[in-house]
Amino acid sequence: MSAGGTGSSRHAGWDRVVCLAGGVGGARLVEGLVQCLSPEQLTVVVNTGDDLVHWGLQVCPDLDTIMYTLAGLAPVERGWGIEGETFAALDMMRTLGGEDWFQLGDRDLATHLRRTARLAEGAALHTVTAELFAALGVRHPVLPMSDAPRPTRVRTEEHGILGFQQWLVGLRGAPPATEILFGGSDDRPAPGVLEALEAAELVVLAPSNPYVSIDPILALDGVVAALMTRPVVALSPIVGGAAVKGPLGGMVRSLAGREPSPEAVCDHYGGLVDALVVEEGDGGDLDWLPVLETQTVMGGRADRARLARELLDFAARALREHR
Amino acid sequence: MSAGGTGSSRHAGWDRVVCLAGGVGGARLVEGLVQCLSPEQLTVVVNTGDDLVHWGLQVCPDLDTIMYTLAGLAPVERGWGIEGETFAALDMMRTLGGEDWFQLGDRDLATHLRRTARLAEGAALHTVTAELFAALGVRHPVLPMSDAPRPTRVRTEEHGILGFQQWLVGLRGAPPATEILFGGSDDRPAPGVLEALEAAELVVLAPSNPYVSIDPILALDGVVAALMTRPVVALSPIVGGAAVKGPLGGMVRSLAGREPSPEAVCDHYGGLVDALVVEEGDGGDLDWLPVLETQTVMGGRADRARLARELLDFAARALREHR
Repeated sequence: MSAGGTGSSRHAGWDRVVCLAGGVGGARLVEGLVQCLSPEQLTVVVNTGDDLVHWGLQVCPDLDTIMYTLAGLAPVERGWGIEGETFAALDMMRTLGGEDWFQLGDRDLATHLRRTARLAEGAALHTVTAELFAALGVRHPVLPMSDAPRPTRVRTEEHGILGFQQWLVGLRGAPPATEILFGGSDDRPAPGVLEALEAAELVVLAPSNPYVSIDPILALDGVVAALMTRPVVALSPIVGGAAVKGPLGGMVRSLAGREPSPEAVCDHYGGLVDALVVEEGDGGDLDWLPVLETQTVMGGRADRARLARELLDFAARALREHR
Repeated sequence: MSAGGTGSSRHAGWDRVVCLAGGVGGARLVEGLVQCLSPEQLTVVVNTGDDLVHWGLQVCPDLDTIMYTLAGLAPVERGWGIEGETFAALDMMRTLGGEDWFQLGDRDLATHLRRTARLAEGAALHTVTAELFAALGVRHPVLPMSDAPRPTRVRTEEHGILGFQQWLVGLRGAPPATEILFGGSDDRPAPGVLEALEAAELVVLAPSNPYVSIDPILALDGVVAALMTRPVVALSPIVGGAAVKGPLGGMVRSLAGREPSPEAVCDHYGGLVDALVVEEGDGGDLDWLPVLETQTVMGGRADRARLARELLDFAARALREHR
């Protein structure tokens, strides 16, 4: 139990929480969690397997989606990018014959330019990430899963092995994925990741794509071992038999050979998940672990806080014996 | 003499003209010349001594000013950048704590991103320059003076040696320049520069800053030797005792120790200049070479063509014995 709150931003149930997250779905839950937990109570670890070099710049889509969301810059509906973003550079790039399949906005470009320049100066990605978040006024610690590149690739029957963004954005995720591959020569999590997991009283798996947002984090040295000894609560990214967003539905079919469901997600994570939050009416077949049914499709900022609080309260009730 | 024109864009007086140019003043005269001369008749060689790496990007201010001008994208009054340019990335960069002393616009950014990416792929600057100009529909050949970096630096009493843009933009050119330094480990002009000069019937020195726009070109291997054997006409950047634009006036004072005048410019170029075009009333003391007095402060596109035509006609009359 917390020794004492410092106001509405301290949840009484948990002193140290780590959330593993991908992009849009992850960002929404994280925005809820930061309203319930102080910067001392919460650490966020973010997938960098989607990262790409585009126009010569280091782009970290999941980190940036979370950054813009926490900074209040993301459009509520679309979830990614920057509200009111302009695309003058992209227009000009098109005129100049450059690549235009991956759309970078003008303000967003500054983020990638700054990150790329700092990395070129020798700064580590976790350092640059901390600088960028701080510059936008985000106080909660958000860590990239790794400092080294860990490019996720997707194997397809039709096109062979593709870079993740090439598959997701370039081909709209249409060719069925038959295997997800995690690359990179350095398997170490970024500094602070294992330390945060080992100190965590609770680990939250955000409603992100298990295959391409959470698995890349789990594939790093020591992460699964750390999670095995922690209580883990997951929020299902599958609602009413379909993914809330993105290519997950098709991936469950092509990779697991079954229909999308919270059970399919839970089975994918194996014994890691100790409690599960699902949409109202979706919990029927889940009888081997504690389940909370609630409204999980998040609206605006207040709704995200509501869901995060329900998740933390539920986990405190359901997982007290783990602590 | 030209074997025959192909319409209004072929000047009858000269078959092969090379123009050496810097930024804004250079761009205006070049825009005039391209209206008088076909792509086969004119080659433009542009100063790259002002180039800088900013936000990790290779920026070539003089090449870009000429490119945007010839592509019809430059604002007529201001002369540099892109008409209607936006600065969303710069605003965001400021928020992120990045450098904001050198202002890059959003559309302009695409140029630098594309150039930087192509250079990183191993393309030479003259190749990338040709690609960018072609993408914007410019048909006349425009060459960077060199493929290798040739950074111009400015020595000042107060601040020591400064990068050119650091002095010009960062300090608004205020500290008096006591010496101009040309750097770089490779003195070779870009491929095509010497070939163009050796084939030239006429060389035009644009009304650019002699010290920091034209001298960097003249400092390259073989350029002065090639010019010594060619008729050279210069357009004075000094009008009525002052520079039309930029820091030239102060530089004539601090570097040559005299008042700005067409004579001072002519003396600076030594014996290189065979004929000079100056503003109405400015030619009084120039009696040792052919001088054309005319209206040299250029307005819009048509006025630039008018001046270029006058200059070419004058040079054809005055320099026929050189040919």
